[in-house]
Amino acid sequence: MFNIDGERLWASLMEMSEVGRLPNGGCRRLALSDEDRAARDLFVRWSTEAGAEIRYDCFGNIFAIRAGTEPDRPIILTGSHLDTQPSGGHFDGVFGVLAGVEILRAMNENNYRTNAPICVVNWTNEEGVRFAPGLTGSGGFAGRLKRETVLDLQATDGATFGAELRRIGYGGESLSGELGFGAYIEAHIEQGPVLESGGKSIGIVSGVQGVRWYDLRISGAGRHAGTTPMSARSDAFMAAAALTASLRTMGLSLSEEIRLTFGRIEVLPGSPNTIPGCVSASVDLRHPDETVLTCFEEAMSSIVDTIAAAENVSINWRRTMAVPAVAFDARCIQILEQATLDCGYEWENLTSGAMHDASSISFVTPTAMLFVPCRNGISHHESEWSEPEDLTRGCEVLAKAVMQLAA
Amino acid sequence: MFNIDGERLWASLMEMSEVGRLPNGGCRRLALSDEDRAARDLFVRWSTEAGAEIRYDCFGNIFAIRAGTEPDRPIILTGSHLDTQPSGGHFDGVFGVLAGVEILRAMNENNYRTNAPICVVNWTNEEGVRFAPGLTGSGGFAGRLKRETVLDLQATDGATFGAELRRIGYGGESLSGELGFGAYIEAHIEQGPVLESGGKSIGIVSGVQGVRWYDLRISGAGRHAGTTPMSARSDAFMAAAALTASLRTMGLSLSEEIRLTFGRIEVLPGSPNTIPGCVSASVDLRHPDETVLTCFEEAMSSIVDTIAAAENVSINWRRTMAVPAVAFDARCIQILEQATLDCGYEWENLTSGAMHDASSISFVTPTAMLFVPCRNGISHHESEWSEPEDLTRGCEVLAKAVMQLAA
Repeated sequence: MFNIDGERLWASLMEMSEVGRLPNGGCRRLALSDEDRAARDLFVRWSTEAGAEIRYDCFGNIFAIRAGTEPDRPIILTGSHLDTQPSGGHFDGVFGVLAGVEILRAMNENNYRTNAPICVVNWTNEEGVRFAPGLTGSGGFAGRLKRETVLDLQATDGATFGAELRRIGYGGESLSGELGFGAYIEAHIEQGPVLESGGKSIGIVSGVQGVRWYDLRISGAGRHAGTTPMSARSDAFMAAAALTASLRTMGLSLSEEIRLTFGRIEVLPGSPNTIPGCVSASVDLRHPDETVLTCFEEAMSSIVDTIAAAENVSINWRRTMAVPAVAFDARCIQILEQATLDCGYEWENLTSGAMHDASSISFVTPTAMLFVPCRNGISHHESEWSEPEDLTRGCEVLAKAVMQLAA
Repeated sequence: MFNIDGERLWASLMEMSEVGRLPNGGCRRLALSDEDRAARDLFVRWSTEAGAEIRYDCFGNIFAIRAGTEPDRPIILTGSHLDTQPSGGHFDGVFGVLAGVEILRAMNENNYRTNAPICVVNWTNEEGVRFAPGLTGSGGFAGRLKRETVLDLQATDGATFGAELRRIGYGGESLSGELGFGAYIEAHIEQGPVLESGGKSIGIVSGVQGVRWYDLRISGAGRHAGTTPMSARSDAFMAAAALTASLRTMGLSLSEEIRLTFGRIEVLPGSPNTIPGCVSASVDLRHPDETVLTCFEEAMSSIVDTIAAAENVSINWRRTMAVPAVAFDARCIQILEQATLDCGYEWENLTSGAMHDASSISFVTPTAMLFVPCRNGISHHESEWSEPEDLTRGCEVLAKAVMQLAA
């Protein structure tokens, strides 16, 4: 047996948080940026020092594999992602990867041998900030995104995914056929308030709500703000405001559980005395029930037409991503529950409001997730925070589950 | 007497349009940028070659002065501005300056002597794009903005007005006390549809509607788009959308003539799966009646409070500019009408929907404006266009009016 070293895990999280550190304390490590490369290099170094063999695939996913006593058994996989939001924190994604590294280290210093090989993965571009959509590496690996589509993705700064992957030195060959996984367990911060308010250290995740992303482009006429009467305008921003309000009202009338976010809004030309001629926006829509998402999409189509006519603009929109609602593997969930029981911690069963790489991987491998609490449910923000004690507990449960699966 | 050379005027407009030329044919010459410096240098060279003496003041306003036979008479001033919108055209502002240069050239080659000195001015930062508010140079010259306030203005790219002025070599001393003007006539494209639809070549402007600018800042909480229920959100963009729609409805209920524009909108952090935590926006409000502007402002105050409470955000706003409605000088208007009559052109009397440097200067000098048509009323856009024939006619009327005022 071996013990998890919570202080070593915390020290690694803090060292990783120096990569892309922001002035206010948060982190900015956009996918395939120089900061992402530095984070990857650190992960590779730590995993190699802990005795793992490094592979990376055509999507830049990095696999740190530790041999087992039975090389032919499917590998037991854990991990998450090292990329962050533009103003992200130190734990979202990072915890899952570095908890895996801590397990490698703890096993290694105790000469602990699993039967099946185990592997810690860093998936590329989970966040989808620099390259939309997100879950790119895990979606590509699971065959849900085509290799060519992924490599041609264009960054918000104009670079392509494939070129940036080569630039930072992490472009390899496809491993989707070669690496066979027996199970995937992802540890992550909750990013919501349930565990904290219930006083539980561990969340065991039954599944993930469905997510659809849309790109929206409103074209009006960029005329002079002083000389153009209101009745003669094609104001793309006024149309965006009306559309936003209408979609929210419609969505909440379908279900109080709906979640609707206009996260990225660009208004051009962006001058105080010119009527906006163009607005582009991202729409993020989520619900646990696919039927509700489909109803929303149908109603959206008619609302867009009504507002385009009323506001004298043209509105183009298209779905850029659809991740169906996911139910995780019953045996993996049961193993996580037993592991939590064995550790002596209390848990709560819950649904994930956020997408995770586990959503993609669940289509090809038995998958489950465990959550640890985060303060005030805040993530995707520089003030994101989890207590070292909770992270240690999460890592202990993860280690027990991985041991059980690899036994 | 002398004749205006319309082809030379057109050639100069086209040569100036090469400075800051955009790929689609428009111009981008933001105030005190390298492109603005290049435009200024060209204006200085042309004016000097046409025999004018160059002065520039502490706001970077450039005065090209041509001596008269009676040096003690107040100078007769014409001109406009060479800075543009981010995606501007070739005529807005530029026509007024280069029509003045054409008059200098025509007088010079004919050895035509006015009694009063005449002067062609290029006012700094009329557009207010890079440094808000606009009308900076004319407002400063007319004593409506303090010198220190102007020099400390911060650009959207972080530079200060004073530092940028020194950098491009156009920072001088105050000339507001030294240069005494007898009248100011500004020629400009209409930027609206009235002249074109009425088939008139000349517009004579009775005054300018009042303008107020506001800065608006909405602060919410930048949480995860998937894990935060709608009822627990502080979504700064949803609040912005609701506020925009409410202000438009309220404004139009006050008066159909109101003009309300949200031209610059910035939404942070700008990630598809993060709820916007911050929105900053510019508001441009116009009406010919000051009372209506004041009523709007009072109603806005209460709407802001209502929406901040309903949307669980905080909203800060402040007025950044107020240019009262202006009536131009009756004698200057009469001289423009007579000049148009003498040239044999038809005119229309109208009110300006746009602010102009003439708005500022009218507070210290008898002022009027003449307009020429522009296609489809479009300006502040790369497709802005005026016919050479209309520009020539406008320049002829301007020349006659200046001659009359300087006689």
